[in-house]
Amino acid sequence: MSDISTTIEELKQLIHDFVEERDWEQFHSPKNLTMALAIEAAELMEHFQWIDLDASRAIAADPKKLAGVAEEMADVFAYTLALADVLGIDMADTVRAKMVKNIEKYPADEYRGRYGPEDGQQ
Amino acid sequence: MSDISTTIEELKQLIHDFVEERDWEQFHSPKNLTMALAIEAAELMEHFQWIDLDASRAIAADPKKLAGVAEEMADVFAYTLALADVLGIDMADTVRAKMVKNIEKYPADEYRGRYGPEDGQQ
Amino acid sequence: MSDISTTIEELKQLIHDFVEERDWEQFHSPKNLTMALAIEAAELMEHFQWIDLDASRAIAADPKKLAGVAEEMADVFAYTLALADVLGIDMADTVRAKMVKNIEKYPADEYRGRYGPEDGQQ
Amino acid sequence: MSDISTTIEELKQLIHDFVEERDWEQFHSPKNLTMALAIEAAELMEHFQWIDLDASRAIAADPKKLAGVAEEMADVFAYTLALADVLGIDMADTVRAKMVKNIEKYPADEYRGRYGPEDGQQ
Repeated sequence: MSDISTTIEELKQLIHDFVEERDWEQFHSPKNLTMALAIEAAELMEHFQWIDLDASRAIAADPKKLAGVAEEMADVFAYTLALADVLGIDMADTVRAKMVKNIEKYPADEYRGRYGPEDGQQ
Repeated sequence: MSDISTTIEELKQLIHDFVEERDWEQFHSPKNLTMALAIEAAELMEHFQWIDLDASRAIAADPKKLAGVAEEMADVFAYTLALADVLGIDMADTVRAKMVKNIEKYPADEYRGRYGPEDGQQ
Repeated sequence: MSDISTTIEELKQLIHDFVEERDWEQFHSPKNLTMALAIEAAELMEHFQWIDLDASRAIAADPKKLAGVAEEMADVFAYTLALADVLGIDMADTVRAKMVKNIEKYPADEYRGRYGPEDGQQ
Repeated sequence: MSDISTTIEELKQLIHDFVEERDWEQFHSPKNLTMALAIEAAELMEHFQWIDLDASRAIAADPKKLAGVAEEMADVFAYTLALADVLGIDMADTVRAKMVKNIEKYPADEYRGRYGPEDGQQ
């Protein structure tokens, strides 16, 4: 588990260097990067497109399928960090601030087992 | 800059606890999470939908617009980590492995200033 | 059922006039329109994000939810026609040509009840 | 131009028969179809991902690129019609109703040359 020992900045720097070495900053406008991110998110969805919810959970135990999924997740992560890099956004601060908002918006006692005000559907 | 001092695991744990305290694991099938991620990626694109590439770069210097963009990026990041949590994927390993592939696929000398085999368009 | 009596061109013209009367051709570059289309497709997905496959089928019998879904579908349709208009693409010809390809690619006898070469999962 | 002589229903029927002949209704839950639609919309965006707005307009005059774009548009259109078929939605009625709303929401005199309340950016 290298998630335990790797900082956000280390991965951000890895992406930054890759882009800089190829002189690709010219393509990496925020508009283009959000498109790239949405496209990778769609490629990730493709792995789950025709299966039901249980089958999607079972992928966790299928190393071959999991590897394909993980690779798309890497692309999503990399473009998110590339965008953060271009815009000068600190992801750790941003995620923490959003989770504070979410904790206020969805009090645990009120939303336990329900996703929205009206429903508790799966 | 807390990206320098925050590990991937710390943010993953933050999301994990939020979901667990609300008993939301039942909604967080991988299929549903990939849809949630794609939806947030689209909400992020919305901020850049009608502007040109230069205007999208200018957002880095506009604190109010930047805050809106950052919040959508937090959602994308959070759902990616929630998915990694559910599937047992180490994001740091996965991103590093993908970047090794990318470095081989796009040799710096060959791809400097060009994005694909055929074009160098912006 | 006005789908029976309405041509593609009539709807395309409706969109064309709406855009022209507002002098919005300047915003409707193909790049921007594909973003708009992807964003509307994501808004459509939002209605199905946390529910299972059976619950998604049940929406056909829920007039209130169906109206919300139909409105997002109208947006998807409208942006597709706006893009066809800008690029000079005939949608009827294009869909027919693609279905000819699909019929060759997925012979009915071979693909009955299965979605891909390897699986017949729901 | 067969858009002039083709009704929505004719294309909807074409898709309906294709699905029925393969016994694919079982895969075509509304939830799955919205994912399929969003994925095709992303594949359409891919053609415009790294180019600027002017270059995206120029594709209208590039038959080879245009053919690739048109094929993705056919997929978007086909899945939208498949979803309308499954949900029993009349697309012509739905699009007309939405355009009536849009005409009220965006009075031509007020929105001429501007896309939103605050900006007139391209």
